[in-house]
Amino acid sequence: MVRRRTTLKDLAEEVGVHTSTVSRALNPETRHFIRPEVAERILAASERLSYRPNAAAYSLRTNKTRIIGVVIPDIANPVFPPIIRGIEDVLSERGYLAILVNSEPRNSRHSAVLDALQSRGVDGLIMASLERSDSIIRGLIDDGLPAVTVNRRAEDVDVPSVTNDEDQGMRLILEHLRGLGHTRVANVAGPQSISTGKERFEALRVHARQLGFDTSDDLVVFAQGLNEEEGERCAAALLDTVARFTAIVASNDRLAVGAISLLRKRGLSCPLEMSVTGFNDMPMVDRFEPPLTTVRVQQYEVGRLAASMLMKRLDQGELADAEMHIVVPVELMVRGSTAKPAAR
Amino acid sequence: MVRRRTTLKDLAEEVGVHTSTVSRALNPETRHFIRPEVAERILAASERLSYRPNAAAYSLRTNKTRIIGVVIPDIANPVFPPIIRGIEDVLSERGYLAILVNSEPRNSRHSAVLDALQSRGVDGLIMASLERSDSIIRGLIDDGLPAVTVNRRAEDVDVPSVTNDEDQGMRLILEHLRGLGHTRVANVAGPQSISTGKERFEALRVHARQLGFDTSDDLVVFAQGLNEEEGERCAAALLDTVARFTAIVASNDRLAVGAISLLRKRGLSCPLEMSVTGFNDMPMVDRFEPPLTTVRVQQYEVGRLAASMLMKRLDQGELADAEMHIVVPVELMVRGSTAKPAAR
Repeated sequence: MVRRRTTLKDLAEEVGVHTSTVSRALNPETRHFIRPEVAERILAASERLSYRPNAAAYSLRTNKTRIIGVVIPDIANPVFPPIIRGIEDVLSERGYLAILVNSEPRNSRHSAVLDALQSRGVDGLIMASLERSDSIIRGLIDDGLPAVTVNRRAEDVDVPSVTNDEDQGMRLILEHLRGLGHTRVANVAGPQSISTGKERFEALRVHARQLGFDTSDDLVVFAQGLNEEEGERCAAALLDTVARFTAIVASNDRLAVGAISLLRKRGLSCPLEMSVTGFNDMPMVDRFEPPLTTVRVQQYEVGRLAASMLMKRLDQGELADAEMHIVVPVELMVRGSTAKPAAR
Repeated sequence: MVRRRTTLKDLAEEVGVHTSTVSRALNPETRHFIRPEVAERILAASERLSYRPNAAAYSLRTNKTRIIGVVIPDIANPVFPPIIRGIEDVLSERGYLAILVNSEPRNSRHSAVLDALQSRGVDGLIMASLERSDSIIRGLIDDGLPAVTVNRRAEDVDVPSVTNDEDQGMRLILEHLRGLGHTRVANVAGPQSISTGKERFEALRVHARQLGFDTSDDLVVFAQGLNEEEGERCAAALLDTVARFTAIVASNDRLAVGAISLLRKRGLSCPLEMSVTGFNDMPMVDRFEPPLTTVRVQQYEVGRLAASMLMKRLDQGELADAEMHIVVPVELMVRGSTAKPAAR
């Protein structure tokens, strides 16, 4: 038996309504124009006859694909899954599908991936992968593709963004360390080409000065990536060159985890001989040995907000100035990786 | 200035060759038909004039999109990122793009996601999200869409698969526990609707009998999902109803992590009062407290093999019988969550 694809017309005949009614009933955004009993019958028939909308035809008719591309820098970073879940929950309420692509800048796949997404037709992009000054983002904006950045922001083009309160996070960490009695704290800063790296580093310097920490330049090492290996390398560089510091403030959790590994390799106890802090509160860091003191970013909420912003952008064409940039509050999670400084 | 899209014809004129030569040079699979110097010049011109292939036109011409859909059950499970990286490395060598979708069965989005992928045109699918008897997979095969399963396998249709040696893994765990002196071991089994859950459970029963363990039915609890919450629930059920067991063998790492949390809540030490084992060796479990004894699955390699299998399928139309199912060896990682049973 050759199976013929069920069409809108088949469904209209089955239920006894006009094809435009079927079309409205099947679209979550127009379903409310149809009486609920009728919509119900149409959906039941669609299920029964295994109706599958032809996306190519829909796309030609409307010039929309109802696909949103979500570009993340590295799927192996556990901070992204909760953000993605927030994005997907909003998109699916609106009948959109998220497709994820992993941009891994190390392979310079970033630009190829975005080109492919754009030429294959996405209605918009949510970008977690970008640099502060990003020619690819600038190209997308020039081409008119609606985009929102999440977690990071662009500096030289005005793309809507949802980010975390990096300044508040660093202040909370430093106040916590000051309260424990630390005054000489080293910093494993993130790459300064990325907004989170730069903003966390600058916030740390401002608050360190205000809170009376030693702010010598030799207390900072810059990581070249946001991963455990770089955390180990930077912690080793600090221990090898800098005298007397009692805590390491890392720009994110993965760098902190790497720093703790390095301390263990050197036979130093965290937190008894050295406190370490992270940033993000990625899943599972409360189960590590020691459990990580870090800043909790509202990952799921940040994802929801970014997707809502993009939907609004698609509905309205553009956003009001006041809606362009949302900064989400953060909180401090005090756990086992910080303690009073050892008496020396 | 209005920017006109650069076409194949523009490139051909720029370089002074026929458009078909440009087309071959731009396709990694046909590039070797062209002299390297010419291909080099065409690629340079394509870069200079910002040529972006029109995927819709390519797709109409060839009926191919060069996109592979990768369907994962839950992006929050850290076992998937290394598999995805293996898949992406093979696909990008071949000029294909992976798009990932998260199928989260709890929202019954699974079927909608696959319908959308299929109707929007992917050349093939790599599925990590499926049940042993899966009507959606059956539908895809009936529709002729090339698919490969990874990590799990389907039972009632013959879809090519790359899986791990579950039997060997369970044998290694039980031999390790037997060697430490355990004889009464409880099992937090995975959902039996999923191939990994069923195969690990059956392997455990076979090897437990052969190695002289107590195999009473009351020593098994079935998890309804593969997450930490279910691990906690199942461990609590075992502790509340079963007398005297000295180790918990969990069907995967997330269940094991949940079981360890529950032990801590009950004031029981792992491993001194109860040993716990996982399966998968997902990233970071070596940093947990205690570090998890588990079975290492070759995640990256499994991803590479699945993508290579799909590429071969696309090249050849079908696979030889001997190439249909690959089972990849595993190894035991002994860490801190297992020890000799407490004397009682």
